[in-house]
Amino acid sequence: MARGILVVVSGFSGAGKGTLMKRLLEKYDDYALSISVTTRPPREGEQDGREYFFRTHEEFERLIREDALIEYAQYVGNYYGTPQAYVEEQLGSGRDVILEIEIQGALKVKEKLADTLLLFVTPPSAQELKKRLEIRGTETPESVRSRLARANEEAQGILSYDYLLVNDDLETCVDVMHHVIQSEHHRMQRNHGSVQKIVQELKAL
Amino acid sequence: MARGILVVVSGFSGAGKGTLMKRLLEKYDDYALSISVTTRPPREGEQDGREYFFRTHEEFERLIREDALIEYAQYVGNYYGTPQAYVEEQLGSGRDVILEIEIQGALKVKEKLADTLLLFVTPPSAQELKKRLEIRGTETPESVRSRLARANEEAQGILSYDYLLVNDDLETCVDVMHHVIQSEHHRMQRNHGSVQKIVQELKAL
Repeated sequence: MARGILVVVSGFSGAGKGTLMKRLLEKYDDYALSISVTTRPPREGEQDGREYFFRTHEEFERLIREDALIEYAQYVGNYYGTPQAYVEEQLGSGRDVILEIEIQGALKVKEKLADTLLLFVTPPSAQELKKRLEIRGTETPESVRSRLARANEEAQGILSYDYLLVNDDLETCVDVMHHVIQSEHHRMQRNHGSVQKIVQELKAL
Repeated sequence: MARGILVVVSGFSGAGKGTLMKRLLEKYDDYALSISVTTRPPREGEQDGREYFFRTHEEFERLIREDALIEYAQYVGNYYGTPQAYVEEQLGSGRDVILEIEIQGALKVKEKLADTLLLFVTPPSAQELKKRLEIRGTETPESVRSRLARANEEAQGILSYDYLLVNDDLETCVDVMHHVIQSEHHRMQRNHGSVQKIVQELKAL
C-alpha cells in the first residue's frame, strides 16, 4: 500500500480554511486530520485525542526534548504542537494527513519532512478578504487592520508553498484541493519504487 | 486568461498512449493536440494541418535553421518535428497543448521550455506490456523483443518525468491525467503573478 502524504494547509485569516477542510473531510473519505497537542485546558465538550491531545507544561516540554513534535509554537502562554507519532501512524496506514498551521510552522514542517505538500488558500482578492473579516462581526476595525497587516507580512512566505488555491466557490475549491492531493500521489519523486520495479521486470523478461 | 500548459506525454510502446489521448480529447474540452510537421508524404485521407503539416525537405530544413521547431528527429529517412508557432498560439489562447513524443524528444522540449509538464504512461507491469505487444498480432517475436529492449533502455529517462501514470483501467487513467494537468495550473510557480497582485492589493488597503 502506498504511503499517505502529509498535507499542510495555510492561508490568510478570512480565506475560509476552516469551512474548506470541514467540507473536504465530509466529502472525501481519503483524509485524516492531524490532532495537535496543547497545554491549554480543554473547553467544555472537548475530548482528549479528538479536538486535541491535552498535556501539562511538563509533559509538553518532555515532548520537545524527545523530538516527538514535527513543529510547535507558543501562543498566549500555551504550547501548541504536532505530534510526529500520530502523523506517522496515519501516513503509514496509507491515509493522507491534513495539518492546518500558519506559515512559519508550515515551513518548519517542510524542512523536517521534505516530501510534505504545502497548500496555500487565499480569497479571490484583498477586498474580498477585508469584507469577510468585517462580516464576521467579531472583529473590531483595529483587529481587521492588524489581521490585514499580518497577511501582508506573511505574503513573503507564500512563494515557498507548492500550490495556490483560490477559495472563490467553496465546492470548487474543495474539489481542486482533493484533485491536487490525489495527483500528488502520481508525482515521479513519489514513485521511484514503481519505476525500478518495472525496469527490473523488463530485464527479467 | 491564464496561459495554457504544454503537456508532453511519453510511454512504453504498448502502454496504450494512443487510446488514452483519444479518450482524453473526447471526454474533456480543455485540450488541443499538437500537430507535427513532417517530410513524409501524406497518406490517403490525411490532410495538411490536421494529421500533420506536410512540408518538403528544403522547407523543413529552413524551419530548423530558423529555430522554428521545439524539437525534431529523423525516422526512416523522414523528418518529424513540433512547430513552435502553433504550440505558442494555442498556449496563448489559454488551451493546454498535448504533445506525444518519445523520451529523447521530451527531454529536449523540457530543456527548451522549462515549464513543460512531462507525463510518463506505463502499463501496470512488464508482463502486461509484453502481453499487449503480442496481442496486437502485428508484431513478430523479434519485434516484441526489440521493443522490450528499447523500453529497457528508455527506463533511465523516466525519472526525469514529472508524473508517472499507470494505465491499468482506461477511464481511470484518463481522469487521473486530466486532474494532474488541471492541478498543475494551481502550482505556485505558475501563479507568482496572482500572489504579487494580492500582496499589492493588501498594501493598498
